[in-house]
Amino acid sequence: MSSEPGDSTLSAWRNGAAKRAILDFVARVTTMGHPDFVPPADRIAVFDNDGTLWVEQPLPVQACFVLDRIRALAPQHPEWRNQQPFKAVLENNVAGIMAVGMDGLTEMVMATHAGMSTEAFAALVRDWIAAAHHPRFNRPYTDLVYQPMLELLALLRANDFKTFIVSGGGIEFMRTFSDAIYGIPAEQVIGSSIVTRYIVQDGEPVLVREAKLHFFGDKEGKPVAINTHVGRRPIAAFGNSDGDFAMLEWVTNGPGARFGLIVHHDDADREYAYDRDAGLARLARGLDEGPGRGWTIAGVRNDWNGVFPF
Amino acid sequence: MSSEPGDSTLSAWRNGAAKRAILDFVARVTTMGHPDFVPPADRIAVFDNDGTLWVEQPLPVQACFVLDRIRALAPQHPEWRNQQPFKAVLENNVAGIMAVGMDGLTEMVMATHAGMSTEAFAALVRDWIAAAHHPRFNRPYTDLVYQPMLELLALLRANDFKTFIVSGGGIEFMRTFSDAIYGIPAEQVIGSSIVTRYIVQDGEPVLVREAKLHFFGDKEGKPVAINTHVGRRPIAAFGNSDGDFAMLEWVTNGPGARFGLIVHHDDADREYAYDRDAGLARLARGLDEGPGRGWTIAGVRNDWNGVFPF
Repeated sequence: MSSEPGDSTLSAWRNGAAKRAILDFVARVTTMGHPDFVPPADRIAVFDNDGTLWVEQPLPVQACFVLDRIRALAPQHPEWRNQQPFKAVLENNVAGIMAVGMDGLTEMVMATHAGMSTEAFAALVRDWIAAAHHPRFNRPYTDLVYQPMLELLALLRANDFKTFIVSGGGIEFMRTFSDAIYGIPAEQVIGSSIVTRYIVQDGEPVLVREAKLHFFGDKEGKPVAINTHVGRRPIAAFGNSDGDFAMLEWVTNGPGARFGLIVHHDDADREYAYDRDAGLARLARGLDEGPGRGWTIAGVRNDWNGVFPF
Repeated sequence: MSSEPGDSTLSAWRNGAAKRAILDFVARVTTMGHPDFVPPADRIAVFDNDGTLWVEQPLPVQACFVLDRIRALAPQHPEWRNQQPFKAVLENNVAGIMAVGMDGLTEMVMATHAGMSTEAFAALVRDWIAAAHHPRFNRPYTDLVYQPMLELLALLRANDFKTFIVSGGGIEFMRTFSDAIYGIPAEQVIGSSIVTRYIVQDGEPVLVREAKLHFFGDKEGKPVAINTHVGRRPIAAFGNSDGDFAMLEWVTNGPGARFGLIVHHDDADREYAYDRDAGLARLARGLDEGPGRGWTIAGVRNDWNGVFPF
């Protein structure tokens, strides 16, 4: 159902070690009689979303949604003008927003993600994402998907892999667009969630989103979430930051053929450069330990011919 | 992946209102141009497990596993001989076991389901279910699946439905046999779960099961769990007790064509009779309100030609 026609020849990948490693892995696990052959039912591949399948700079897309929702809701919350973290958002105080910490972040997420039905929330996201534009590329966020990764998804599906998103981002946020932009149906999207409650209102059943965290799906939460939703260990994992380290570690430690790949954002001209090499700590352990663990490091600058489909 | 050849002609269903309602629904939602047509991606059907897909009398299968595990672990827990609820189990005191209440039940579940890795737990279940026998039919529990429901699963899949199990039972318990006996892969099994933690032990990543409830998937938990795992409202739901009421209510209240069916256990000769008509309250609201809500009631005695495959 999630397979679609697509360019599965990896034409947006330059000929090099990363592309060769991908093609070699797929050939080994799909060749009947090969010692690394894996039956189709066990061909599960998991992908981080932000920074792996689409752009996450200068801010993750869901964070932009949060900020825009706070601005939209501000008239109903005059108290926010004097109350952090909302004050910083309404004053466009970037340093202040960056300094809110985990509690402030949680407060902003709950103020914008809870207190409505699942259907009402999905409609809010759909309306927002249809109108919002990326500040640098001046295009809808849904255009800012990585062409090489779309080709990789298509290649895997053409080889009977089932592809899942496993993100620290909100599960119900991603499900509004995952099928349209990645060909990944809602049931193959895994992420963080808030508590949802079933109630019947005037005879109509409704699922209401409550201002309470249910599951945080980043870092060590990724293997836990995969176990909950998929029920077995995937054979391939794709990420781009140390938030994906545990997922790659778990996946690549299993028996038989395994594949782990990290997208290395090192191209400020065509996209962004923002890992440890740029003075940030987002990808330190993965760069240090990845090669020794047999993981493939795919650099945007050298491994990708094109970055976006446009 | 989960579709298989099978008898999709419903030959174990007697010609009657229930069989006609099923065939009519499937015809309507799969006929292009029909006002009730549903695209394949939205053809989601959810099934309760115990009492809907396989036998749940005289005790749910997972409860038998709990009791057998307590007996097997007793030598390592001499204190259990004087400690309820374990004492009642070790003394085969049926009245005492029935009287343990929710706290006692939780204590027994945690003593038998937690404290090991997910892989070790799955191995325990597989070993147990390969050896255990049903007390009346003297066959492995995995033989005691309902032939009419297997045919229904096959019919739906042959018509591009994706079939899910949605049970109050343990998600990791069911996943050890769901593919083999129902053709339902692990990622389409939804149920109750305990907290699982990712740790690295001597360089080996392990998912450890902790003695703490993560999610209780019965009653109002069923629509919540479907939303978490599937991400949209199914169009068909099948259950057998008031634990399935909320699931059927949510599913059948959606727009467009909808189908709800309750298996009515009224055949003590061929299986069991154990709903309200037998003096128990397991299926009271469903029998009262189901017909008015358009749900189909399928009686084992009159609607099923055969009960088990053997």
